[in-house]
Amino acid sequence: MADRRYTAPVTAPSRGLADVVAASTAISDIDGAAGRLSYRGYDIHDLGGQVSFEETVHLLQRGTLPTQAELDGLVEQLASARALPPLAAKALPDIAAQAAPMEALRSLLSLVGHDDPDKDDNGAAANARKAVRLVGVMPTLVASYQAARTGGGVPDPDPSLGVAGNFLLQITGRTPEPEAVAAFDECLVLHADHTMNASTFAARVCAATLSDMHSAVVAAVATLKGPLHGGANEAVMRTLESIDGGVEAVPGAVSDILGSGAKIMGFGHRVYRTEDPRATHLRRLSESMGQLAGETKWYEMSIAMEQAVMAEKRLYPNVDFFAASVYRSLGIPTDLFTPVFAVSRMAGWTAHVMEQHADNRLIRPDSDYIGERDRRVVPLAQRG
Amino acid sequence: MADRRYTAPVTAPSRGLADVVAASTAISDIDGAAGRLSYRGYDIHDLGGQVSFEETVHLLQRGTLPTQAELDGLVEQLASARALPPLAAKALPDIAAQAAPMEALRSLLSLVGHDDPDKDDNGAAANARKAVRLVGVMPTLVASYQAARTGGGVPDPDPSLGVAGNFLLQITGRTPEPEAVAAFDECLVLHADHTMNASTFAARVCAATLSDMHSAVVAAVATLKGPLHGGANEAVMRTLESIDGGVEAVPGAVSDILGSGAKIMGFGHRVYRTEDPRATHLRRLSESMGQLAGETKWYEMSIAMEQAVMAEKRLYPNVDFFAASVYRSLGIPTDLFTPVFAVSRMAGWTAHVMEQHADNRLIRPDSDYIGERDRRVVPLAQRG
Repeated sequence: MADRRYTAPVTAPSRGLADVVAASTAISDIDGAAGRLSYRGYDIHDLGGQVSFEETVHLLQRGTLPTQAELDGLVEQLASARALPPLAAKALPDIAAQAAPMEALRSLLSLVGHDDPDKDDNGAAANARKAVRLVGVMPTLVASYQAARTGGGVPDPDPSLGVAGNFLLQITGRTPEPEAVAAFDECLVLHADHTMNASTFAARVCAATLSDMHSAVVAAVATLKGPLHGGANEAVMRTLESIDGGVEAVPGAVSDILGSGAKIMGFGHRVYRTEDPRATHLRRLSESMGQLAGETKWYEMSIAMEQAVMAEKRLYPNVDFFAASVYRSLGIPTDLFTPVFAVSRMAGWTAHVMEQHADNRLIRPDSDYIGERDRRVVPLAQRG
Repeated sequence: MADRRYTAPVTAPSRGLADVVAASTAISDIDGAAGRLSYRGYDIHDLGGQVSFEETVHLLQRGTLPTQAELDGLVEQLASARALPPLAAKALPDIAAQAAPMEALRSLLSLVGHDDPDKDDNGAAANARKAVRLVGVMPTLVASYQAARTGGGVPDPDPSLGVAGNFLLQITGRTPEPEAVAAFDECLVLHADHTMNASTFAARVCAATLSDMHSAVVAAVATLKGPLHGGANEAVMRTLESIDGGVEAVPGAVSDILGSGAKIMGFGHRVYRTEDPRATHLRRLSESMGQLAGETKWYEMSIAMEQAVMAEKRLYPNVDFFAASVYRSLGIPTDLFTPVFAVSRMAGWTAHVMEQHADNRLIRPDSDYIGERDRRVVPLAQRG
């Protein structure tokens, strides 16, 4: 006779869910062994430098590279979403006065949600509108925060520039060179999605309760805030800055850091077993943007560090490593590197929320209990 | 010869991670077959009605039921954390004017984080302080929101009352009867933790990037906001209210709802295969609080609905089902049922964040790619 009673599953705990498949997705794919990344079937090597961030947003959120007419429509929608909504605008000065960038972004995005006319609608059409608005407002949130904390203003957007160009304009206060715009645009494309990274997974766990898109991206930003996920690009820059003596001093500094038991940030990845394909592009951009800025030191130090870490630890640089020197050469303040990542990743987060809502099941794993058992309550007066 | 190349894991996707062990925990345990729930080894049947919410906070966050001296210390810490921090207080009127309760709580908690002196410290001592402050401020956040949107004030806390009594006082505006305080205190104990539920899991995914405790509980609130997780208690009340004709009309209404293909909220659970042990207590409280309020109709309708759903679907009521009529009888507005859940669950969320930080690994699952492959980029002008 079959025993039809429920029996608890016998599953070994997988620390960190490494190699556990948590969801099916049609948005991006990684072949960790081959070092390949693709967005909706397009290899990142074909997309980087060939399509704009706006085209990538269309690809991730809507599944196809846009026609010219579709792109024009999307560009217009992104531009109309650029203004800071009232609640976020009102709270911004106080937030900027006392919050670091990622905690500020967490609050600002949550406040943006209150003003969204579709906030309570998880339907496909409303989600598509919110997804575009969220990508559209992100650069403004970061640039307005930067302006508020430095006491400056945010330059008016330049209608001849796209997301990348306007963001550089608004962060740095000056019209960027076309080469800088192209390089930054490519950075935004390269960071736009990356399967079940922790922040995207947090967004999906949130959305899977049928919570709304703003809640899901707030959860994503809260998760990206952690230094094991979002802070690595900033840590790379701070490590480079901490090395006195330029390129020649790098191998010794790497040995010292590793010898002390510390990690060198920007190397290794849970998924890739070879070079992160994004690092290939960012290495090239690190060189060209260093030349454009007239300061190749950060690129040269990065190359020396890459070689030293490979020699000592056999670890490949990941997406964060060369992004640091690229952003530095573009004039982006170091503590905005992670918010810049979030500006790009908003494209992926929103696409994943839409995918989760379109075919949803609550994400509710099990746990393995390792604590005490069978304790008896002792009355308060008798405890001691 | 062993092939030492990395090979991708072959793992069938588990939709919703059902039965997948995502973490080890010493905080709570569920035996779904036996219908048992325990907090740190104490059966919920022993805790409910025997220990206060404050004792439960101590148990979950610090691992032991407190001595009288430890309890006195915790009560004092909770009371000192009660005042609304400045940034949240300043933004509250605008938020209350246009945000529903759970989105408001998401923003308010994020703003509370900016004012926390330990916000950037994930160490055990700082985490313990933040965990207490978060539990302490939660009732104030909900009561202040309620006051702000109704134009009333928040009554001063009564030092003779604990968390449960003061919260009822501040939400309803009148001093609660001792029986109501005891019942609500028991509700807070019953809801305080529940292993890897979606919001707790979101908090751990967030904390596992070494993001901070406030970020993690913001992610948890964002996740609890979804109707598949937090909204069920409210949905139960609205279903009961939608039935004209009282107890006699319930079986027909249940048949109508189920016949239309809709679900009846408050029944069934992914983990329990028998009665949710919390429902046992909440059924009793539903009856006694109905009697205390002089309106037993909601209890009686709930019992009739429980019987009808069992007869038609063989589903047991879960924690949300009888909580609805209890909260109704206690005078809590229906759209604050989920925030009330959050007031209690903050004890568990914070305990899980501390546990995650104490022995951390990034939570980064895999995904299964089901989309298109090997697409080639067509230049923009040629697409159409």
